[in-house]
Amino acid sequence: MNSDINKKLQEQFLYQGLGFCGAITASVTHELNNILGTIDQLSGLLEDLALTLTQGDVATGNQLTAISDRIFKQTARGMTLVKRLNTFAHFRDDVAAKFDIYDAVENLLALMKRLALLKKVELILTKPAEEIIVKTNPFSLLEIIFLAINRILPCTKKETVIEVVLSKQNSDAVITIKSMHDGTLTRLSDGGYLRSLISHISGNTKESFDDVYYNFELKVPIPER
Amino acid sequence: MNSDINKKLQEQFLYQGLGFCGAITASVTHELNNILGTIDQLSGLLEDLALTLTQGDVATGNQLTAISDRIFKQTARGMTLVKRLNTFAHFRDDVAAKFDIYDAVENLLALMKRLALLKKVELILTKPAEEIIVKTNPFSLLEIIFLAINRILPCTKKETVIEVVLSKQNSDAVITIKSMHDGTLTRLSDGGYLRSLISHISGNTKESFDDVYYNFELKVPIPER
Repeated sequence: MNSDINKKLQEQFLYQGLGFCGAITASVTHELNNILGTIDQLSGLLEDLALTLTQGDVATGNQLTAISDRIFKQTARGMTLVKRLNTFAHFRDDVAAKFDIYDAVENLLALMKRLALLKKVELILTKPAEEIIVKTNPFSLLEIIFLAINRILPCTKKETVIEVVLSKQNSDAVITIKSMHDGTLTRLSDGGYLRSLISHISGNTKESFDDVYYNFELKVPIPER
Repeated sequence: MNSDINKKLQEQFLYQGLGFCGAITASVTHELNNILGTIDQLSGLLEDLALTLTQGDVATGNQLTAISDRIFKQTARGMTLVKRLNTFAHFRDDVAAKFDIYDAVENLLALMKRLALLKKVELILTKPAEEIIVKTNPFSLLEIIFLAINRILPCTKKETVIEVVLSKQNSDAVITIKSMHDGTLTRLSDGGYLRSLISHISGNTKESFDDVYYNFELKVPIPER
């Protein structure tokens, strides 16, 4: 056993995997910070209102209701995001789990929303007609989708969408990532680590494009009952 | 190159690493959820207050100030936690970084606080007399400390502390983890993955105990200027 090669492989898997986890966590923490910052400001408005009251004015119920409504909205947004991050954190523990691919991808794309919006691109997921249950490493599968989207993101036509479509073909689950490109596909990275992850979960990919569209397709075997 | 062995190694490093990341993230999301839940309740109090107002009562400035103060406290707590999680997320990107070991460990222990409190144990870090800069993989070093603390946590005497002490000895940074044990040290796990991580960062460890105390010592070389 060549220990240098092993060390390199370990590092490759370790750091790339953590890069994914780090990118998602960092993005979510930025958004949570915005939410908490907004609540902080609303709390400041409340204090201003309190000051007005002590000077003899009467705060109307409407003013208070307006502030509390805005706080409710922010906390709801925060709790949804925190719940999604928590789901993501728990995904990692399973080496080969059976799971609904739509639920997992829906959660991932929601967590990636901000990363896409920074590039003025929207992520759209189509719910499949039937439930698709796969049995694989959920974290690696999500990392593949994350990497594939991140790879095409810089070449996606601005202010368009990246569509993720889930379907069933014979005994495979098929994940298609499709977007209009801006003509700079030569800038696409080699994707060597992406390929090694795909082979790690025994998946198959096909990449294709024409003058307008770029298309990435990943097939993952569905377990027999 | 034996591909089965490689696959096993990859999985070991991949899942154990993500287990650390997942455990920290999951713990923090629970705490953030508590914070947002408290803000939500305070917002409910605000709405009650608004209702009282519309029924002809006058809210005093004091009541409003009390609620906004409590919201301020929760948002401040949340923002500190989010900042710490963000720092943690960014740590992972560096393969071999130069960093202040106190800052990194202080951040980790703050994120682990809840995990220790669940076992009725407090984590205490002593600031070293002088700055200690190491050059290593920060994520692996933090994971080692996380694993070493998690390993002793079930055997630590209830309602006592785990002390983490940082010091310099010749050309090494020394991290000591010390606690009173409850007499069940035979339950300590083998720590095979912990050892492989330690050798991964070229560290050295010594473990010792007597009737009262358990002691774990990790030495990491300090780079020459």
